This record gives sequence, structure tokens and C-alpha cells, in this order.
Amino acid sequence: MNRILTLTTDFGARDAYVASMKGVILGMVPEARLVDITHTIDAFDVMEAAYILRNAVEFFPAGTVHLAVVDPGVGSGRRPVAVRSGDRWFVGPDNGLFSLVLTGQRVDERVVLDRPAFWRTPTPSATFHGRDVFAPVAAHILRGTPLGELGTPIEALKPLHWALPIDDQQGIQGWVVHVDRFGNGITNITRTLFEDRRRGRAVKCYVGSTILAHVACTYTDAPGGEPLMLFDSSDHLEIAVNTGNASELLGIRKGAPVNVVFLEDR
Amino acid sequence: MNRILTLTTDFGARDAYVASMKGVILGMVPEARLVDITHTIDAFDVMEAAYILRNAVEFFPAGTVHLAVVDPGVGSGRRPVAVRSGDRWFVGPDNGLFSLVLTGQRVDERVVLDRPAFWRTPTPSATFHGRDVFAPVAAHILRGTPLGELGTPIEALKPLHWALPIDDQQGIQGWVVHVDRFGNGITNITRTLFEDRRRGRAVKCYVGSTILAHVACTYTDAPGGEPLMLFDSSDHLEIAVNTGNASELLGIRKGAPVNVVFLEDR
Amino acid sequence: MNRILTLTTDFGARDAYVASMKGVILGMVPEARLVDITHTIDAFDVMEAAYILRNAVEFFPAGTVHLAVVDPGVGSGRRPVAVRSGDRWFVGPDNGLFSLVLTGQRVDERVVLDRPAFWRTPTPSATFHGRDVFAPVAAHILRGTPLGELGTPIEALKPLHWALPIDDQQGIQGWVVHVDRFGNGITNITRTLFEDRRRGRAVKCYVGSTILAHVACTYTDAPGGEPLMLFDSSDHLEIAVNTGNASELLGIRKGAPVNVVFLEDR
Repeated sequence: MNRILTLTTDFGARDAYVASMKGVILGMVPEARLVDITHTIDAFDVMEAAYILRNAVEFFPAGTVHLAVVDPGVGSGRRPVAVRSGDRWFVGPDNGLFSLVLTGQRVDERVVLDRPAFWRTPTPSATFHGRDVFAPVAAHILRGTPLGELGTPIEALKPLHWALPIDDQQGIQGWVVHVDRFGNGITNITRTLFEDRRRGRAVKCYVGSTILAHVACTYTDAPGGEPLMLFDSSDHLEIAVNTGNASELLGIRKGAPVNVVFLEDR
Repeated sequence: MNRILTLTTDFGARDAYVASMKGVILGMVPEARLVDITHTIDAFDVMEAAYILRNAVEFFPAGTVHLAVVDPGVGSGRRPVAVRSGDRWFVGPDNGLFSLVLTGQRVDERVVLDRPAFWRTPTPSATFHGRDVFAPVAAHILRGTPLGELGTPIEALKPLHWALPIDDQQGIQGWVVHVDRFGNGITNITRTLFEDRRRGRAVKCYVGSTILAHVACTYTDAPGGEPLMLFDSSDHLEIAVNTGNASELLGIRKGAPVNVVFLEDR
Repeated sequence: MNRILTLTTDFGARDAYVASMKGVILGMVPEARLVDITHTIDAFDVMEAAYILRNAVEFFPAGTVHLAVVDPGVGSGRRPVAVRSGDRWFVGPDNGLFSLVLTGQRVDERVVLDRPAFWRTPTPSATFHGRDVFAPVAAHILRGTPLGELGTPIEALKPLHWALPIDDQQGIQGWVVHVDRFGNGITNITRTLFEDRRRGRAVKCYVGSTILAHVACTYTDAPGGEPLMLFDSSDHLEIAVNTGNASELLGIRKGAPVNVVFLEDR
């Protein structure tokens, strides 16, 4: 078993929160290899975290434990959970965080973390389960403790009400689910859905006041400063500007509608 | 001895400064396990760094070396120091950085770093002791060099003029010492002081134009968007808004006064 | 061989891009020691990345592999390359990224990465060569694969049109190439050039509406809040304000001209 543990949170880089979790883990598994996915998820944005996690997880090797804490319901009734899907493990709150990364994947084990013996303290901080519950449980998994010892099996995880795009014969209506650092607007329209519905027809894509008619292969297919659409490195439709910031230049924010219309030959 | 070394600076994530220190350390101790606490301390804010360090250090295992460089006096007469408290080590400028984390702790050794043989160069950059003095000394400690070889013993560290809250029979007057990534305002009022003075009485807390009367256990004790006070995961009184940004919504900044009044039964 | 690999990108800390590259590398070389130099290079700013890389690389030990991806031309005709200079390796796009760090250094091998067998997939994402080409090639180098297997030798790298300062007997005209986290303006005027041309004469430095006449040794040579010039820890002329933000206080931005005039004795 490798000892890679990734961390995804909305705790930011300014505070001691992330380091506290790392200290707890290294105290239990000194040889753990900690990799930050990101700690700058928008505060409480479970959907964004689910999206980021989905894009990162597949590139990590077998045996990796993924710890994710975006937890607006900490201290309330939401369940702390751990999940195994093949040789990948996930630990965090049961609020939909893992719903995207687990879509289409087999789930072999899922447990609610109800055994305080595996926590940092039997009376965890009401506001910081990341440090007192999730980090020590993830460290136990890294050490090889089976999920069945860490908690009680449950039937299902809470789904994320991840709104899928609406589609019919004429087109697809989706929206921007994430704006990346370059200002690219990444939509919830997958390449598979797009090509299935398109059936070789010409296309127009309406986003803000911009109309795009061609699917580019790469940014430089458009002149510098010009908008384009392409499928990103995770095969989602992306609205971009070659060497420019599409979010600023086209006024695209998270949540902006993206309408794709397929044109009939005539 | 483990080989964990934490780094806390105000160098930010944009520049080569932090990486330069890491390169120096890894060149001397290839197996060092480097953990960032934070590099986004407000520039020159020794008090904020002292607060962050205090909150993170206790969660790291025995043997950890903590390197901290928030150093407005670099190149002037302030002393470079190293300290041992039990099985924890601290390296940095003598400007109060370690005063909070050492409060109530035994200090076993403290030395001024006056032996250039242990530096990266006998003529360190006047503006970057982090790379040329502190990083190599921390690496020597990680290798097991005793503090007594690295410098000359000194009697005391410079105290941080960390203003404690003022309290009397009627209440406590403190203030916000840190605003975290979620906009929570963390005060210098500890749970111990609060409960000692409160003696079971009812309480009112005045902060900005907000009055709080109940100490919550967790964020979700208040409705979404409503303010609350609770003790944070480090047992300091915190002003928060459930799933909201208290700093923005209540106008709380670092330094904002927080008045706690205890009410007599009648 | 050590297993240190540094990463320098403009991918930011918000997205899954950097973590994806790390996952790919750790999947191939589980014992790799990953060190972030920075991921917050201004988007597409190859010159800034070249400057940061130049400042960090020399502090890393022999055997380190430096992976850098600031790649405005991804998917276009720009070449992916790997370079060896002594016992340091560099992997990234051939757009001038490595021109500063290699200035004055022997280049022992340089190859274009034209062998898909060493990539993550023979059909890499057109927008993310960092993950699909550069990360796996860097991992192969870390494993000890010779450059000659990874690609075909090339004659020269593309130069960065890094504008050098203009100088004559009277003075030097340079400019600010980087503003660091503290607001210090770092220029393209090196200490060597400055002292060579100065020949002991008095000096005046004009930057914005500020005139500086003395080269300080350290920030505290000026009173708090006062501007000064000094040579930074990489021996470039730097415009600073003692415990203040020179960029804000003096209105200095990246690109600001800096005129140094040498005064004749009379």
C-alpha cells in the first residue's frame, strides 16, 4: 500500500486549520505522503469541491486516501463517513462531496464514522471535525485499518443535487459550474452528451452576449483575445478566450447559463 | 527522531523565497518532511504569526522542528534564536514570534545563533536570514545537532506585547486578533477566562452593532445567516455567522473590540 | 540520485491542475519529493516564471528535476523540451522559461519531447500538456531515464526576449521585472552591472516620483515608511520601503522604468 493522502478543503491557506490536520496525520503515520488538492474551495461550496475532487482523483495511484472537508453542517446531524471504491478511499462529511467522483464507480464499502476510539478525542471540537474526526480516521485507513472497524455500514450516501443539463433534440441547456484560475468557464456539459445529441450537426452556443459556432481543439485555434469553446482536459465543454480571461472579458460567472443549439441541415 | 519541519512565514506563495529555504533544507537533510503552516501571515504581523503558530504546534508530533520567519527587523540588531521546549524546537528571529506557543511551557534551552559555521554562508544576505541563517540552522537541528553547538545560551526571549483582555467582576473587554478564511472573528478571550469570570451568570457580548446573548456549541445552533458566538477549536471566543462571513456581515476587522458583560440575577 | 522534483506553474492553487500533475508523478515515482516553487505566476507570464525559477533553482541540491509549465502556446506548435545542465534537469515548454536560469550555465543535453511512449497517453489533452506530457517525462527523468531516450536532441532553445537594461558611461536604464509579496520592486539591474558602471561614483536613482541617492544594506537602514534601494537576496537592485509596501506607496508596478545616473566628482 502506498501512503498517499490527499487533502481538499475550504479552509484556505491563511489559517492553522490545514496544518493542524497534517500534524495529526503525521503524528499517527510519519511516513504519510500528503498532497494538497486545494484548500481554496469557495467557503461551504460542496458542489465546487465535488467537481475539483472528481477531476483530480483519477490521476492518483491505487491505494490513495482522499480526505475532503467542506462541511457547512459541521456539528449538526450530518454524518461523518468513509467510503471505499476499489483501491481508493474517501473520508469526509456525508453531504454530497463524493457524489461526482463516485458516479459510475463501484462502491465497495461505506460506513458512518461512529466509533470515537478512532478519533483524536472522544469529545471532538464541534466546529472542527476535520482535525478531530476525519484526519485521524484517514490516518487509520492509511495504516491499513479496515473500514468495517472504523464505523458501521450504511446503505447509501446523501446525493448531491447536482443539476444536470437539460437536453432535447434541439439542444442542451447547461451552465458554468467552475471558473478556473485563467478565467475559463467550465460547464456541466460533457463531451459524451454533446456528441450524442449533436449527431454531426452544426452548432451554436450562446453564453452571455457571445455566440460560438465552432468547437476548437486548443486555445490557439482562436486569435489572441478571441472567445472559443472547446472540451477541457476533463472532457467538459469550456468557454475560454485565447490568452485572455473569459470570465472577465465575456462577463461569465459561476452559474451563467450556456445554451447549445444544434442546427438542422437545409 | 522524526524529520518533520514546519514553516511559517509572511513570504507569500508568489515568490521564490519559501522554495529557496526548502531547497537549502533538502540539500542538507534530504529526508526532511516539510509541512507548510502558512506563508500568508500579513506582512510583518508578528502577533498574527504568534497566534497561528500557537494553534498549529500542539498537533505536531514530538521531535518536530518549527521554523518561523516573520522578521520586520531583518538585518538590524534583533537576535536570531533557537529554542527547545521538551521535544519541540523553534527557530526564528527573537521578536516575540514564539511567545504565545511557549506560554505555560517549560523552556529547556534557548540560544542566540552566533556561529556562522552553521549558516549557509558566513556573510548572509542582509534581507533574507530565512534562507541563509534560519533554514540551515533548522536543518542542523533536524540532523540532531544540539542547540548548545549552534549558539550561545541566553537568559530570556523578547516578549511579545500581546495585549491581554481586561477583566473585572462585571465583564471582559477583549478584541479580535485574527479573522480566518471564513470571516470568523477570533478574540483573545479564552474559554478559561470567560468561564472563571462568568460564574454561571447570563451574558451579553457587544461587538460592532451586534449583541449576542448565548454561547453556541456549533455554527448550526444559529439559523443560516445569523450571528453567534462560540468557543473555537482552540478554545478562544469566536464571533461567527452560520454559513456566512461574520467579518463582512457584521463589519468586524482585526482589532475590533469585543465587550462581554455578565448580568446579575435579580 | 535524490528524488526532488520542483513545480512552477501559473495554474493557481484553486484548481485540480497541479494536483493532477502530482498524482501522475507519484503514480510513477512513489518516493518522489515534490516541492512547489510557486503556482501563482501571473497567467501566461513567461518572463515572471523565468525570473522566479532563476532565483529558486540554485538553492536546490544536485539531482533535482525542475518542472515548469507556463504555457500560453499549449496545443500550438511550440516544442515540449527537456534540458540537462550538469546535475540539474528542466522540463517544460520551449518558450524561454529556462533562459534565465540557464544564462551562464553549461547546457549538456537538450531534447524535444517527441516520443509519446513516455507520455501519459499518446493522445494528450490539447490544453494540458503539464499533466499528459511534462509530468510523466519529469517522472521518467526522476527514475533515471536518460534524456536521449525521452526525445531527439535539438540545437538550441528558444530565447526569451528578456530585455536587458541599457547602460552607458552616465548610467543605467532598467525596469521593475517583479513585485514581490511585500510590494518590493525588483529590477533587472544586477549588482555586477551596477558596480562595474558606477566605478565608485555617487549615484541617483529615479523611479516614479522618487529619487534615491544611497544604496542601503538592509531595510532598516531607512526609517520606517521611507523608501530605499538595496540589492536583494539575488543581487538585483530592489526598490523598497522599510516595513511598507513600495509598490503601493511609490506607485511602482511591474514594468516601471528605473533610471540610475552616476554623478561625476567636481
